[in-house]
Amino acid sequence: MKNISELRQDLVSGDWVVIAIGRAKRPHDFSRKEKLFFGQPRNSCPFEVRQKNALVSYAKDSKAGDENWWVQVIPNKFPAFGPGRAEIVRRSGPYKWLDGVGFHEVVVTRDHGRSFAGMNDTEAELVVRSYQDRYLALKEEKLVKYISIFHNHGREAGASISHPHSQIIALPVIPPDVLQSIDGSLVFFKKNKTCAHCAMIKFELRSKERIVFENNSFVALAPFASKTAFELRVYPKQHAAHFYGLTATDRSLFANALRITLGKLYRGLKNPDYNFFLHTAPVSLHEQDHYHWHFEILPKTAIWAGFEIGTGIEISTIAPESAAKFLKGIKI
Amino acid sequence: MKNISELRQDLVSGDWVVIAIGRAKRPHDFSRKEKLFFGQPRNSCPFEVRQKNALVSYAKDSKAGDENWWVQVIPNKFPAFGPGRAEIVRRSGPYKWLDGVGFHEVVVTRDHGRSFAGMNDTEAELVVRSYQDRYLALKEEKLVKYISIFHNHGREAGASISHPHSQIIALPVIPPDVLQSIDGSLVFFKKNKTCAHCAMIKFELRSKERIVFENNSFVALAPFASKTAFELRVYPKQHAAHFYGLTATDRSLFANALRITLGKLYRGLKNPDYNFFLHTAPVSLHEQDHYHWHFEILPKTAIWAGFEIGTGIEISTIAPESAAKFLKGIKI
Repeated sequence: MKNISELRQDLVSGDWVVIAIGRAKRPHDFSRKEKLFFGQPRNSCPFEVRQKNALVSYAKDSKAGDENWWVQVIPNKFPAFGPGRAEIVRRSGPYKWLDGVGFHEVVVTRDHGRSFAGMNDTEAELVVRSYQDRYLALKEEKLVKYISIFHNHGREAGASISHPHSQIIALPVIPPDVLQSIDGSLVFFKKNKTCAHCAMIKFELRSKERIVFENNSFVALAPFASKTAFELRVYPKQHAAHFYGLTATDRSLFANALRITLGKLYRGLKNPDYNFFLHTAPVSLHEQDHYHWHFEILPKTAIWAGFEIGTGIEISTIAPESAAKFLKGIKI
Repeated sequence: MKNISELRQDLVSGDWVVIAIGRAKRPHDFSRKEKLFFGQPRNSCPFEVRQKNALVSYAKDSKAGDENWWVQVIPNKFPAFGPGRAEIVRRSGPYKWLDGVGFHEVVVTRDHGRSFAGMNDTEAELVVRSYQDRYLALKEEKLVKYISIFHNHGREAGASISHPHSQIIALPVIPPDVLQSIDGSLVFFKKNKTCAHCAMIKFELRSKERIVFENNSFVALAPFASKTAFELRVYPKQHAAHFYGLTATDRSLFANALRITLGKLYRGLKNPDYNFFLHTAPVSLHEQDHYHWHFEILPKTAIWAGFEIGTGIEISTIAPESAAKFLKGIKI
């Protein structure tokens, strides 16, 4: 059976890339200049109805039937990862690669035109609950080393379907960016005997300069070293390495923090395109003193060009302190 | 004096970002949806005339006067880095930052509508010569630890002025992406007693599967672990850590390889937007057995969305072998 994709490792950097053979295009397809159609009308939107193959669905009234779903999670129709043999490291000359095995799911909310920023607390909580439930299910799969949850809002953020949806990808490798953060956290922990994220949160809550929003359990802030203008992160105030351990109370408070933060961005910057994603400890690692899960929100306020791609150093044209002050003042 | 920018370090990842205070915008400026005007007409293009403050210029006929320039290098009018104190590590709470010191220059070729892909060997050689000359000058500056040379072609690749131009940024830090590659090269070298890049080039020249073009001294190929569809790299066949050591003969051959590779991309994909940039050993390091300079060319064939930004794993929808075969067949 032909695999959906290959995970290939760069010989020098150790980075992984995915060559998606299963959805491969012909060379000439890349020369088409036309934009793909975006902003599908409701009557041709693939996410309007409950899918027969839905893995799980949630209604606002727990007694309601499936037809009253608010969130459904479905397998991605065009997955980047699929079934295969995870454990075999393949070789071609000096190179290493793996079959692109894993899981690729889509989290759809019912309302065609209303994104996360426009939800109420109940609606947002169900989305977060679906993230957590699928995370808990996928982490039991033997091949899974890391689970990425992310959301692309708007054409420039890479969404190909405008109907609001998130994606969950369960991977057979730990992503290099996550490994780097975990390594950095460990170095800090060994030196300072405390979690770097906790130290940062403590400092930020005291200085208040970069805080955008907080409730009892979560804080949203503009990071000191923001990678883009208006980058935001939502952290649990209490130390926790794994997202999946959220309690019911904290799940509600996290949903509240995320929807208000995205609401401020929506209102303040007039519905910018953005990506948000989870960073959490890899599934195979037990509770860790040095890593601290969080969500990162990156609005598409600029293009990463040759300098950024070539060096990994991003240039932001607003100070995080100014961005935070502005968003803090936006009422939701 | 107010600095042009700050270099701030992420507490956890160790990555650097630039907060460009000098060209800071107000929060509301980020909510404007209109695209900036691109494709300036010749009569309002800032790069049409020779600038009085040009650092250096080159003519095709070496006896010609300045008015016959083909390449000029000028200071960037809106630099991301400027004068300041490089050696002082500043602290705010748990964070570290530096003044954004360095140099930011622009390499302009004369022809308003003709990009690198349309140049002849003589014209391309003068561009590469300007890169090398400015590199050699900037590496003598005490504060400079790394020099990035890059080119943004087209609006989606981040160019704000359509008139063809490259940029040179001299930095007071070694970029994290470069450090990672150097570390990876060193690990490979210690294990295999050979440069990873040399091993890769040797294998690729034998297999021919991913080769797009070669001349006596350079080879252009689609990397096994391509980060984007149609990613290309141009390598010297002989081991060399530093770009600046190019001989006159190899400078001509490199210019030839770069212009033909870009020409194939231009013709094959109908003038796609792209970035290209130099990866070379940092200026402060002496000749190294394990690092190998090269140029990377990344066409803008897809948007890096939440998965790519959140994990560092890119998804490419064409196999590098197919991309190479297609481009190899494009006649220039």
